[in-house]
Amino acid sequence: MSTTTTSLPATGREIQLAARPVGWPTDADFRLAEAPVPGLAEGQVLVRNLFISVDPYMRGRMNDVESYSAPFALDAPMEGGAVGEVIASRSADRAVGDVVVHFLGWREYAVVDAAATSIADTSLAPASAFLGALGMTGLTAYAGLTEVAAFQPGDTVFVSGAAGAVGSLVGQIAKASGAKRVIGSAGSDAKVARLLELGFDAAFNYHDGPVKDQLRQAAPEGIDVYFDNVGGDHLEAAIAVMKPGGRIALCGAIAQYNSTEAPAAPRNLATAIGKQLTLRGFLVGSYRHLAGEFAQKMAGWLSSGTVRFDETVVEGLENAPQAFIDMLKGANTGKMVVRVG
Amino acid sequence: MSTTTTSLPATGREIQLAARPVGWPTDADFRLAEAPVPGLAEGQVLVRNLFISVDPYMRGRMNDVESYSAPFALDAPMEGGAVGEVIASRSADRAVGDVVVHFLGWREYAVVDAAATSIADTSLAPASAFLGALGMTGLTAYAGLTEVAAFQPGDTVFVSGAAGAVGSLVGQIAKASGAKRVIGSAGSDAKVARLLELGFDAAFNYHDGPVKDQLRQAAPEGIDVYFDNVGGDHLEAAIAVMKPGGRIALCGAIAQYNSTEAPAAPRNLATAIGKQLTLRGFLVGSYRHLAGEFAQKMAGWLSSGTVRFDETVVEGLENAPQAFIDMLKGANTGKMVVRVG
Repeated sequence: MSTTTTSLPATGREIQLAARPVGWPTDADFRLAEAPVPGLAEGQVLVRNLFISVDPYMRGRMNDVESYSAPFALDAPMEGGAVGEVIASRSADRAVGDVVVHFLGWREYAVVDAAATSIADTSLAPASAFLGALGMTGLTAYAGLTEVAAFQPGDTVFVSGAAGAVGSLVGQIAKASGAKRVIGSAGSDAKVARLLELGFDAAFNYHDGPVKDQLRQAAPEGIDVYFDNVGGDHLEAAIAVMKPGGRIALCGAIAQYNSTEAPAAPRNLATAIGKQLTLRGFLVGSYRHLAGEFAQKMAGWLSSGTVRFDETVVEGLENAPQAFIDMLKGANTGKMVVRVG
Repeated sequence: MSTTTTSLPATGREIQLAARPVGWPTDADFRLAEAPVPGLAEGQVLVRNLFISVDPYMRGRMNDVESYSAPFALDAPMEGGAVGEVIASRSADRAVGDVVVHFLGWREYAVVDAAATSIADTSLAPASAFLGALGMTGLTAYAGLTEVAAFQPGDTVFVSGAAGAVGSLVGQIAKASGAKRVIGSAGSDAKVARLLELGFDAAFNYHDGPVKDQLRQAAPEGIDVYFDNVGGDHLEAAIAVMKPGGRIALCGAIAQYNSTEAPAAPRNLATAIGKQLTLRGFLVGSYRHLAGEFAQKMAGWLSSGTVRFDETVVEGLENAPQAFIDMLKGANTGKMVVRVG
């Protein structure tokens, strides 16, 4: 049954991209605005957003360069993952009260095609988890590890940015799937301690010394799989410590997103020949075919406590730009989300 | 029937590694010596080498570093692919007069386990071709293109070092297998002209300008496959011009073999994420399972004239070191071999 409610909001707050950042983004690159809420066309729903996601890939879309997805438009609301409650519907497929995941984040109210939403089953986990462990973040970790890096039980796995949203799941999924040894790198001692609590076999703070040296010490027999969220010296170190036949999933390069200079590393890529390494870049959008098996496995891991997820929740839509900047600087442990209300 | 002949040689000439090169090898790193020819154990054959192979990978084995194969020993004969005639046999599997391929090159006479030799069918092609188009060189091109880079008909293919032994075969195999467009880079105008004669759709001299610019011009729609023999700026240029989903076979990095500094490139590896590129290093030894299908196809292509191969033949074992050095500098077109006799 399609339904509508009365007393819908006439306007809503949204975060617009005011300027294209050069190097690190600043508050001045964003603008909080009040905008009219459009009416619903047939097949659309009006969603009151509960949580919005801030993710590293968004930095790339702030640049006006050809890439795998179009740049964000200036003076228009930012986009991104969001979860919210349907408060009006002109679709038979979505009812008022449904909690849905969609892609029009960074705003209070979103008018979305019902077909572009998916139901969040909040009996499994709180709504915000559908932006994290049970959402694209989790699928990124799962697809990157299992399909892109062709993980096999018995592998030794290294993940960088391991206390981040994707990284912490990669390590736990690897352990749950029979990894021999899982090693993570992170940017603070507190994060390192958290990784060990989450079941990582070893973890190190990359500020403590060269990544290559710390990784060799943590993986004296070498690594089979590297899940790269960082790029740069982490990637170079992983190549150096890889066993023959090792596989690298290139997921992110957060070390470089705000750099205005091209990175010099990895300088040892030629050693990938003799070691017969595979490096494979990927986008989660190409692995939607795994969403079903992923959702089933992750629900089981979460309910059994095999996989745990951390969230860093920032309060208030108006703080989303700062949350995004802080996330790029590593202020989050686990998934960074912004509570809209 | 195992047979032996009389009046076998008591000694033979060989090229020894006298010193480990630092940077570019020089004549002083090698030594011509006269050494006793050992007697044959049961199962062995004595081979009079006709041609020996000089290949880029040998440079790496001259260094005393951990790698995929052991370093060459100092003051011992160099090793490498060779083709020669059996002049004595204590094996039922090899008869005097057989022409065989084996791995104890850089010497006049080799005592080899018969099981470590393979018969060269010289009714198909001259003996030297079994070091090139019909040998490991050809298998490298075939396996790297078809399996490592997962070539598909309709692909646009770029190969560097395209006038070299492997590169010229890669381009021709790609054309014979339904490539939409094949582009090669080489280091002289004469080589570029030769590539066009061999059926490359486009070719350029990398001395004429930035590789990236020349490649973009030759492949305005981008490339699907890059077969890398060079590394460095060629690899960076290929990454820049790759279409989404592109595949790179990392076969060699001849630009770096004699460098005493780590290379800075490719500085754009992070773009492999958004383009979902795959880079895969490989060694031909891991693709022996393709040898049968390769030999059959290549024999057909050679007999029909679909694939042609160039050879640069240097006369005299004593000139092997200079031939090797010249090959590293690109003096060869096609396969460089040394005629021993």
